[in-house]
Amino acid sequence: MRSSLAIIPVTGIGEIGPGDDLASIIAEATRQTGNSLQEGDVLVVTQKVVSKAEDRLVDVDPEFGHKTLVERESVRVVRRRGDLIISETEHGFVCANAGIDLSNVEAGRAALLPVDSDRSARRIRDALTHRFGIDVAVVVSDTFGRPWRRGVTDVAIGCAGLRPVVDLRGTTDALGRELQVTEVAVVDEIASAAELVMGKADGVPAAIVRGVDPTWLGDGSVVADVVRDPADDLFR
Amino acid sequence: MRSSLAIIPVTGIGEIGPGDDLASIIAEATRQTGNSLQEGDVLVVTQKVVSKAEDRLVDVDPEFGHKTLVERESVRVVRRRGDLIISETEHGFVCANAGIDLSNVEAGRAALLPVDSDRSARRIRDALTHRFGIDVAVVVSDTFGRPWRRGVTDVAIGCAGLRPVVDLRGTTDALGRELQVTEVAVVDEIASAAELVMGKADGVPAAIVRGVDPTWLGDGSVVADVVRDPADDLFR
Repeated sequence: MRSSLAIIPVTGIGEIGPGDDLASIIAEATRQTGNSLQEGDVLVVTQKVVSKAEDRLVDVDPEFGHKTLVERESVRVVRRRGDLIISETEHGFVCANAGIDLSNVEAGRAALLPVDSDRSARRIRDALTHRFGIDVAVVVSDTFGRPWRRGVTDVAIGCAGLRPVVDLRGTTDALGRELQVTEVAVVDEIASAAELVMGKADGVPAAIVRGVDPTWLGDGSVVADVVRDPADDLFR
Repeated sequence: MRSSLAIIPVTGIGEIGPGDDLASIIAEATRQTGNSLQEGDVLVVTQKVVSKAEDRLVDVDPEFGHKTLVERESVRVVRRRGDLIISETEHGFVCANAGIDLSNVEAGRAALLPVDSDRSARRIRDALTHRFGIDVAVVVSDTFGRPWRRGVTDVAIGCAGLRPVVDLRGTTDALGRELQVTEVAVVDEIASAAELVMGKADGVPAAIVRGVDPTWLGDGSVVADVVRDPADDLFR
């Protein structure tokens, strides 16, 4: 029997800067709003505040804009039109402008992706476990475009304490036939669900997803488990 | 101030067959479980039960399997490997096997996509409004793969009473700068959120997403608003 999920925005976090202790700030914000983190919760934190806390802020070249940055942060350019570049990052993510973010950042500055976005998630998770005794999974989310469909959605770029892809192979459907669809990217669905309470303009950089199937909790990495081997990617 | 969302599985729906009145069955199931639909809810219903209720079930050719069906239902084949075909449907969706579903369907039979998936959503919405006086948005969801990332996620193939893509152009971020990311495909994020309480094997073909931003409610169509004009699609 499936039970309900709650998607709870973590409000009151305020501006985040280099060196800020995100785990403590988030733990405190959840306490203040009466929605303290609980065991089994998935805490979703946006890339932007993670990058700021990790001091991934850089100057934008006043002459060339962010283009030189995007090229530096890309291992492969997929497509280019005007100012927009779709490229693959070192992590293996394919996204616009190598994930470099100019919104919600001071003018003249840009926020790069975390160097190791799974490690970023792990650090937050470990801090919450060791300093506050709270055992939660952590997802770092970002906003990506995609082919064939208009509009951006949030996906995961890092996780800790969560199996990002749940394998339903071998289980049977309601009629006892083996399921064809086998692997569900729950980590991306969780990131998308969290975005619904964050908005882009409201300064809500974290959300709690409460009530996920406990069998999804465990070890995993977005870079290792979600980024596709090109040879295996029929959609590419 | 953002508020929380609840994602509530609609249990107790049972097997759906051709001609079944989905709106009534779902309204009754939500009442039985004490989670009656409320104004402002988004009701997410999976393609499978919509296709079954609309009698989109067909025989699978015993000799050629589902391949001939997939070709008939495709306007363009994107890629082919063994039994798997990635193709574009008449609606403009790019997905595996033209969205044809063999799981949770009797052996030897397959479920095609609804002919007009937005109309399917509209019919359920209209029935709920007129027969039960419940004003809810409706999303028809399906499970698609995507390039570059492993695992499937649920996306919307039809909607009614909901603006599928929310335009944040012109709004400013928390620092007063104009936002770069402008259009969020909330309809797909809602479909993904709903999937988290449905599972593939549990026979939960509907979920309520309660608490979405009321400004997202309104007119819209997945086929018209989400399917991208190829000329406009840098990711393709």
